[in-house]
Amino acid sequence: MEYQAPLKDFQFLLHTLLNFEQHCEALGLTELNKDLADAILEEGARYASEVIAPLNSVGDEQGATLNGGKVATPKGFVEAYRAYCEAGWAAMTGPEAFGGQGLPALLATPFHEMLMSANLAFRIYSGLTEGVVLALNTHASETLKQTYLAKLVSGQWAGTMCLTEPHAGTDLALLRTSAKPCADNSYSINGTKIFISGGEQDLTENIIHLVLARLSDAPAGIKGISLFLVPKILPDSQAENALSCGALEHKMGIKGAATCVINFDGAKGYLVGQANQGLACMFTMMNDARFQVGLQGLGIAAQSYQGALRYARDRLQCRSLSGTKNPELAADPIIMHGDVRRMLLTQKTLVEGSRLLGLKAAMALDLEHRGASQAIRQQASARAALLIPIVKGFFTDMSMEVSNLGVQVYGGHGYIREWGMEQLVRDGRITQLYEGTNGIQAQDLVKRKILADKGLALSALINDIRQDCAQSQANEKIAPLASALLHWLNRWQEMASLMHDNNLNNPDSLSLNACDFLHFSSYILLAWCWLQQAQAAYENLPHFDADQDFLQAKIQCAHVYFERILPRCISLMQILLGNTRTIPSFQLDHF
Amino acid sequence: MEYQAPLKDFQFLLHTLLNFEQHCEALGLTELNKDLADAILEEGARYASEVIAPLNSVGDEQGATLNGGKVATPKGFVEAYRAYCEAGWAAMTGPEAFGGQGLPALLATPFHEMLMSANLAFRIYSGLTEGVVLALNTHASETLKQTYLAKLVSGQWAGTMCLTEPHAGTDLALLRTSAKPCADNSYSINGTKIFISGGEQDLTENIIHLVLARLSDAPAGIKGISLFLVPKILPDSQAENALSCGALEHKMGIKGAATCVINFDGAKGYLVGQANQGLACMFTMMNDARFQVGLQGLGIAAQSYQGALRYARDRLQCRSLSGTKNPELAADPIIMHGDVRRMLLTQKTLVEGSRLLGLKAAMALDLEHRGASQAIRQQASARAALLIPIVKGFFTDMSMEVSNLGVQVYGGHGYIREWGMEQLVRDGRITQLYEGTNGIQAQDLVKRKILADKGLALSALINDIRQDCAQSQANEKIAPLASALLHWLNRWQEMASLMHDNNLNNPDSLSLNACDFLHFSSYILLAWCWLQQAQAAYENLPHFDADQDFLQAKIQCAHVYFERILPRCISLMQILLGNTRTIPSFQLDHF
Repeated sequence: MEYQAPLKDFQFLLHTLLNFEQHCEALGLTELNKDLADAILEEGARYASEVIAPLNSVGDEQGATLNGGKVATPKGFVEAYRAYCEAGWAAMTGPEAFGGQGLPALLATPFHEMLMSANLAFRIYSGLTEGVVLALNTHASETLKQTYLAKLVSGQWAGTMCLTEPHAGTDLALLRTSAKPCADNSYSINGTKIFISGGEQDLTENIIHLVLARLSDAPAGIKGISLFLVPKILPDSQAENALSCGALEHKMGIKGAATCVINFDGAKGYLVGQANQGLACMFTMMNDARFQVGLQGLGIAAQSYQGALRYARDRLQCRSLSGTKNPELAADPIIMHGDVRRMLLTQKTLVEGSRLLGLKAAMALDLEHRGASQAIRQQASARAALLIPIVKGFFTDMSMEVSNLGVQVYGGHGYIREWGMEQLVRDGRITQLYEGTNGIQAQDLVKRKILADKGLALSALINDIRQDCAQSQANEKIAPLASALLHWLNRWQEMASLMHDNNLNNPDSLSLNACDFLHFSSYILLAWCWLQQAQAAYENLPHFDADQDFLQAKIQCAHVYFERILPRCISLMQILLGNTRTIPSFQLDHF
Repeated sequence: MEYQAPLKDFQFLLHTLLNFEQHCEALGLTELNKDLADAILEEGARYASEVIAPLNSVGDEQGATLNGGKVATPKGFVEAYRAYCEAGWAAMTGPEAFGGQGLPALLATPFHEMLMSANLAFRIYSGLTEGVVLALNTHASETLKQTYLAKLVSGQWAGTMCLTEPHAGTDLALLRTSAKPCADNSYSINGTKIFISGGEQDLTENIIHLVLARLSDAPAGIKGISLFLVPKILPDSQAENALSCGALEHKMGIKGAATCVINFDGAKGYLVGQANQGLACMFTMMNDARFQVGLQGLGIAAQSYQGALRYARDRLQCRSLSGTKNPELAADPIIMHGDVRRMLLTQKTLVEGSRLLGLKAAMALDLEHRGASQAIRQQASARAALLIPIVKGFFTDMSMEVSNLGVQVYGGHGYIREWGMEQLVRDGRITQLYEGTNGIQAQDLVKRKILADKGLALSALINDIRQDCAQSQANEKIAPLASALLHWLNRWQEMASLMHDNNLNNPDSLSLNACDFLHFSSYILLAWCWLQQAQAAYENLPHFDADQDFLQAKIQCAHVYFERILPRCISLMQILLGNTRTIPSFQLDHF
């Protein structure tokens, strides 16, 4: 399936709206400017559309295969990965001390979205390595860093995260993989991990597994979990470590990505960070991974919109209800029909609204790591922490809606594999499940990011949005949108208080309502993103070189969003306001 | 994947709630009683769970294959189909004059739901034959009936419907397949049809295609379309007709069902009904097919709920937020978590609410065909016509939500093929597309079934529901539900009027809002179905042999539905009340 990168939208968001150069200055990255950023994204777009997009259906058809313990990736993946490393894409966000380019997330995020759109299965192999680099750079000893980081940053080696076991997914407290200290300061790792993306592959010389395991004397539960670095090949001796790929999972989608069972049979590993602090270390990686999974959802959704739009312009079927639009054709293109337009504009407003929200989260991640003062870094850290479960949970739920609409626009043809639309549904479906199901994201949002924080990060965010609303109220064309958003900001704080109060009397209510609260919050945030885009469009319309059509489209989309998508909050609020006892008290044998 | 038929629910709905025996009497079927019906459904349940459920994953893995023009169905399908015919299931609803059992839709519907749950791909082969029988019995000449009906009714032969061409799906006016009269009163058919379910297979001796084609002198558009019966094997000569299966589609799901390209190369065909009246004839079949597709959605959803419930009881992960529930286990079963209960009860209330609505539609279909007076038949016909686009459109959209929730309950395991949950998503996805996309169903509902009818059938339905509400208001326990439903009945009529008024000024608004109106209508209808179930449960609780748990569950589910699902109407209404110009006037180059 063809892929055309939305470069115009990236440029609008990065430069017109988010002031990319100013953001880079705040990070101390003074050499990075608009032209360089645009050049990088153009080159990235070329790579995504010309190199990996053509391999997407190949990957789906062939899948990754396991033979004699070795995984073969689909035809073309090896060459595409080599090109990826040679062009320096692997090192884009890596630390400069280990050969990375240290580019900000605000620039990497659009590039990563393009990779996800073009070929999600391929992107999975490189995506986790960046998280491994982050975790090691933050928590590992200097020796481990010196031995492993440079080759992970360059992409010569790849990384994985090994958390899940057959009986322990969401509940890591149950995990059984064990680590026994050896004389040489290493550990002997034993156990079986499942769902390991890229656990074995033929793209890199070595694979560095980050493994959660339990020391023999460790306390029970999650306070007894430690993190270990376990290489496939031991760098000193070049010997193969005592681990193996036992099987590949047969999956609904992302078939080009090898999802492995990895058996550790006394494999040599090295402690990362402190003993029994493994979960905290892993969360450094997991936060990055969750943000990336959100982008996966966005990428899939963006590609589905693109495919649906192309088909809706081409496919001729029936006449518009308001009269023939293309008398020279046998029928009107289906984009002339209200129902098809509704589907396309639902896709477009969800995708482009989410895209801006993702970039805002990326800016918070940048400032968390490189903000000029501790106060800035702390504020940014709280903002990122608040937004990440939303990016992960909402973008991926949104993606399922959008990619299914894409199939629907194609009618029966959407069900046929060669069009590529159904693959997007299958590939994207994983994003609601891995790195913590969306139910877990929602509970993380409410419990850790709002209640445990006493609502401080949420209030700070809402205050920022209120200021943007005040600014937009000066423009009478969008003042009604700003007023609507202000209304919902108040409701948002009320619902957060309600979640808090309900939780005191009835803790089950938190789990019960978390998903609806996450969606409620997300639709309000997207309204903010659309108000800002409309505002920026109005400000730029008078410029002599402005792309009038592009800016007018943004304004129109803002109205579509406020008229047709934002009202979803009304039902969600009604549900949140409802009885929180009926379902928790539902008797087990009544199901 | 295991399948357990919901026999208890069928019995509650058929006997306790819908008075099956009284319905049969009204149809003149005095020999049919409760015991016989239960025995038939029990035997059907055995067939579904023991014979075809075990073939469901086999069918998905092997798929139908094409070799030298011949299709092989997956291993086991031939034997299962033979057993199906030998047990008389094929003849269940067929006319008695041709060997059918003439059983009512009210009994066939639960049986068909079981087939869809157990193995949708397998059911597709037999499902269309019933529609072909109906169309031929209604429109074909006596000669054609004598030659074809008995063997179609017995299942010895199968039928297909050949409508779609590569450039003509929704818009049949564009179809090009031609029919040229021959000397012997037959026609020579030329053209290519696509998406032909069971167009070629190895289950039956002969395949009878109903083909839409255009006579050479026919007027352009849909008024020039005629219907032809085109057998694969000519019964007289036993010669192969000039038609062939050119290819099988590669699909997202229902892989065990052969979806064929059929080429007609001067094939011999026979006119069914009047020349140029083909669409009307085909609609007899299509209405039946649409009802069946709705049941497909229901069947998939019901099976997904069953799978999710089983897993949620077994899977141990984390402790309940309100405190440990199963201290003897390493963790609580996930059914103890609010978020999982929310998903399960969303599934359950949508499935069991829809099940009753489907049976109500089946009763209307029965009365349409066999009601005692013309007045009864006409009223029933209008009721069925109104409900069928809802059954097709809503059940299948609902099914996609429910089967995705089923995957979500399994977490990462939901994405793995061997569990069977993702297959339900892939198999069920077709139901939103074929027999008219759900956008087309929604427009059929608004345009033909409400506006063209001046709202008469809708008002009659709403009046019936009002009477049920009045009855329920006498029970103080459910009086609040009845009041809520009465509120929504008024809103429903207002929204129907709004659709009418909008359409006068802005015809695009009909297409734009039809899907949301269909969903809005459906949630109100399901509220009726839940009110009735709660009402019936209260009435039966005092009986000495009542299943208290089952009835209490129905009452609790009614509350869950009204608290958490019905509020979706609020947002839908807000959207319907909104601006209907923004999207139709969205400029083409702004997409």
